[in-house]
Formats: sequence, C-alpha cells, structure tokens
Amino acid sequence: MALTINEIRSARERISPYILRTPLLRMEMLDGYLGCKVYVKAECMQTTGAFKIRGAMNKALQLTPEQLKRGIVAASSGNHGRGISYAAKMLGARATIVMPRTSPQVKIESIRSLGAEVILCDAPERFRLAEQVCAERGATMVPPFNDEDIMAGQGTLGLEIMEQCPNTDIVIVPVSGGGLIGGVSTAIKAIAPSVRVWGAEPAAMPRYTRSLAAGEVVTVPYSSTVADALAAQTPGPKCFPYVQSNAYGFATVDDAYILKGMRLLLTEGKVLAEPSSCIGLGALLQGLIPVERDTRVCLLLSGGSVGIDQLRVLEDVAL
Amino acid sequence: MALTINEIRSARERISPYILRTPLLRMEMLDGYLGCKVYVKAECMQTTGAFKIRGAMNKALQLTPEQLKRGIVAASSGNHGRGISYAAKMLGARATIVMPRTSPQVKIESIRSLGAEVILCDAPERFRLAEQVCAERGATMVPPFNDEDIMAGQGTLGLEIMEQCPNTDIVIVPVSGGGLIGGVSTAIKAIAPSVRVWGAEPAAMPRYTRSLAAGEVVTVPYSSTVADALAAQTPGPKCFPYVQSNAYGFATVDDAYILKGMRLLLTEGKVLAEPSSCIGLGALLQGLIPVERDTRVCLLLSGGSVGIDQLRVLEDVAL
Repeated sequence: MALTINEIRSARERISPYILRTPLLRMEMLDGYLGCKVYVKAECMQTTGAFKIRGAMNKALQLTPEQLKRGIVAASSGNHGRGISYAAKMLGARATIVMPRTSPQVKIESIRSLGAEVILCDAPERFRLAEQVCAERGATMVPPFNDEDIMAGQGTLGLEIMEQCPNTDIVIVPVSGGGLIGGVSTAIKAIAPSVRVWGAEPAAMPRYTRSLAAGEVVTVPYSSTVADALAAQTPGPKCFPYVQSNAYGFATVDDAYILKGMRLLLTEGKVLAEPSSCIGLGALLQGLIPVERDTRVCLLLSGGSVGIDQLRVLEDVAL
Repeated sequence: MALTINEIRSARERISPYILRTPLLRMEMLDGYLGCKVYVKAECMQTTGAFKIRGAMNKALQLTPEQLKRGIVAASSGNHGRGISYAAKMLGARATIVMPRTSPQVKIESIRSLGAEVILCDAPERFRLAEQVCAERGATMVPPFNDEDIMAGQGTLGLEIMEQCPNTDIVIVPVSGGGLIGGVSTAIKAIAPSVRVWGAEPAAMPRYTRSLAAGEVVTVPYSSTVADALAAQTPGPKCFPYVQSNAYGFATVDDAYILKGMRLLLTEGKVLAEPSSCIGLGALLQGLIPVERDTRVCLLLSGGSVGIDQLRVLEDVAL
C-alpha cells in the first residue's frame, strides 16, 4: 500500500470516534521569545497523552475479530505502548507490551492500568521477545512507526492542523523513526503544498539529517538525549521516502535548547509537554529554522508524558 | 455608577485591543476525575498571566491624559500590580507599585520589567504608603477589586465564557475580594440567567460564605492558604451586593484539595495555573458542588503566576 491523502482521510473516519480533536492554540505570549507568530497543536492533551493512539487505533481497527482475539503486541517503554494498550482496551482485545525492566514505574503502571499485560526484560531483548510472544500466540505485532497504517493514523494530525490553522506558513514536527512526520508531511503536501513542514530531531541522534544527506537510510549510534521519545537510531525504511518527498527541512536541536523550549512552554505558555515535544521550540530558540516576525509557525506538541518529579530539571534552565 | 451588562459590554469594546481572548478548552481527560463534563477558560494564558489586566485596562482607559501623566498607583504583591503596570505601559503612563518587601523576587522583577517603579515596604504599611504616593504626586490609586470599573473589566470574562461555551450549566470562579465574581456573575445572570455561577474561596478565609450568611460584609481573620491570591479578609463593599444577587452558591475549599486540583490540571490536563486558580477543581474534588456526569462545568482559571520552583510541592500530592 502506498500512503496518500486518501488513506489519511480514511484513517480519520476510522479513528475519529476514539480520539480527541485536540485544541490548536494561538500563543501570543511566546511570539517575542520565538521571533514569529506562535501556534501550538496541543496533542499533549490527547487521550493516553500522545499522538501514538492515532496510528495504533488505525492499525487495530483494520484487524479481523479473529486477529483481535489473539491479541496485539508492542515493544515499547512509552507512548506507543500506551497507545496500543488503549486501542486494545477500546476494541476488547488483549494487549501485551514488552518493556525494558529499567522503565520508570509510572510508565509501567500507566500501561497496566489500561488492562495490558506487561512483560519486563533487558532492553536489548525487547524486540526479539515481542516477536517470540507473537509467534507463540499468533498475535499481531504493531510497529511504532515503520508502517503505512501507522503513518496514515498519525497523518490525521496534518488534516486537523490545516483545518484549525489554515494560514500557517510552517509546521514543525518532532522526529524519531519518522511515523509522525511521514504522515503529517504527506497530508499537508497534498492539501497545502506551500506550507513548509520541518522536522526537528535531537542533535545527539541526527538519523534523518544524515540519511537525507546520504540519500538513503543511515543508522546513527545510540546517544543519550533529554528527548527520550526521539531515540530511534534509524529512519523507518517505509517512512523515509515520504519524508524525503514531503518534508521541507530538518533541524538538529541541542538538548539545552530542548529544555529551554520546555521551560518556556510551561512557564510562559502554561502548557506542559514532554521534552521530546518541545524540540520545535528548541529549534526556533537555537535559530535553526528561518522565520520572520509575521511568519505563522505551528508547533506540534506530540505528547505530554512527563512525571511531576521530572520538572525539577527545569529549575536551573534559563530562558 | 451601577454595574450592568451595558457597562460590561462597554468595557469589552474599550479593552479588547489590549487583551487576549484566551482559549476555552474542553478537557475530556478530567471528566472521570471531576465527575462532570469539564471545560476550562484558560485565562492563565492572558497577557501578564492573569485576568487582572482586564479591570486595570478598563480603569486606565477612562483616565484623562492629565491623570495618566500624573501616574497610577497600586498596592499589590501580585497579579493586580502586574496588570496595572502593563496597562500603564500600554498607555504611556507612569505606574508605581507598592509591594511588601517579603514579595518573591520573581514577582518584583516581573513588575520592574514592565517599566513600573517598585516601592518596597513592610506589608501592613502598603496601603497607607500607596495613598501617600497618590497624595504627593496627584496620582490615581487603582483598587484591586472594590470598584465598578474594575468589576466591569473582569466581567468581560463572563461574556467570553458564554460565547465560547454557550451550553455550560455551571461556571466556577475563584473568589477573593469579589471583583472577578462580581463582574462575571453580573454578566452571566444578564445573558444566561439559568447558568449557575459558583464562587470558590479558601476554607481558611471564608469571607463571602460568612458575609452571605450574615447578610452583610463580614471580616474574617487573616489565615495562611496555598491560594495566596485569594487572601482578602473582607468582601469589597461595592462587590458584595452584586455577588449576593447574582452568584448561585459558594464552596469553601481545603488547601489539600486545591493542590490536588492543581496537580490534576497540570499532569492530566497539561495546563499550568497558580494554586488560587485551581480552587474550582478542588471544590469538585472535595464534593462541594453538586454535579452529574452530564453537567457541563466551566472552570475559570484566573491566573498562571507560578514559579517553576513552586511545583515541587505537587510531588507529594496524591490524586
């Protein structure tokens, strides 16, 4: 299947009963800091706290009753696992989430509270173990990003952004494996080709910037970053061509600017999003995306999974 | 002057070029916690971080050029001072804010950054000192709440709430001296008389609950509360009759529930508001306002003045 605007529109019809249409907010208070007219798509307010539910629901809603009965499986320590667990719960299916035993307790509990089975393992084992569970039970593995149905689900955010903020000039999307920007850039290129969709990835793991320069999928070494949800080492091979065709540019953002962005969003914008989601603010603060005072920039805040104790790190961040 | 819907509509015309129309958000994620359909009027995202700018602008815009030249004065350690400073800056007037020397440095700096002169003094001295400054300079004192023009400015929030959420059943308003609820309840009673406007005040300082029971303005002893912006000991005598006529009921909320509400709003709703603004969530969590699952409840989040270091207190708050 090729991903087109039609698949994204179908995904929207499929998933809309299960997800929230999150607000898109004009944030005048941030204009002076970021040097442009600031809008945020507050997907951090989505059910389960992140956009991942969109792709997960789009995938799960296309399984047969027999497949749902055998269950769905994901290897994930975060938002993807929660999206899958929620989708399974909505559809009366069994979800099994394979997580590193080093995952924060709050993430483990939030997945269990959705009724999913959690299997803890050593981090490098998790994909192999998830495949083993699928093989034993005849269950369906749901990948986090490298899948057209997942991209189509995430792409529904592109439709919403263009409906809620039709005059936007730029959309900035946090990037890891590329499921989100693959879907969003494909949607926006189809309906508003003059809008520039930028990807923002951690400077510590510039897998898209490197791959785009090389013209092919390149793997970068694992490196620690505050943007812990953006830690894919390799672009999804199925995502890469869509990003190559439809994204306008990429910014590689330093951790210090990501945290500045998070602090700015929270203390001046009054919105809480996880560090990974604040990378677009970081890109603007670091001067990596050219804008002018009248440029309308929509920042996609992809998730809000952040524990209250994680906010201490912001105390020492200067704006 | 008597406060009517006409004064509130005039105030809106006057102040709208200077203030933001803040978003009103549907917060499905909070429905299960609060037992109703939750909406928030996110006035914490207002210019200067609080609703106070509305009344301040409405007052300042009615001064003569000569009065503006002699300056405006307020005794305030918080949002009122910032509102006055911003209004003065917009109109090219001089603002003098008399603050207790115990005020947090961040509040002093934020007022200075708006170009206002700050006079520090012992807390009990601040009103006397502000009056002295007015007398010496022929400047105009702007009261925080006990004034029809101030109430008319705050009442513009009632107009916006009913436009942005016309089907709401209940509006919950944080209460201190009564400027905000005086204006908001007067506006809503005029345009949607079946909507129930509740006031929420700290259990530690129930000045409205006591005064309404007594049928006259009563002073309560000063008491410490986490809702530090709701610390008036006495209802404004000019506010009281409007609240008496137009508010439906009052809730006196314990500090523990105010903090629970703040934590809930931040971690589940992803919105940051100051403790005082979260008293409406606290009232619902404490079961003080009768609601059913289908009741539409709009919580007025009156301000967002909270330092990042103040969030630590939420770490030990259980939901």
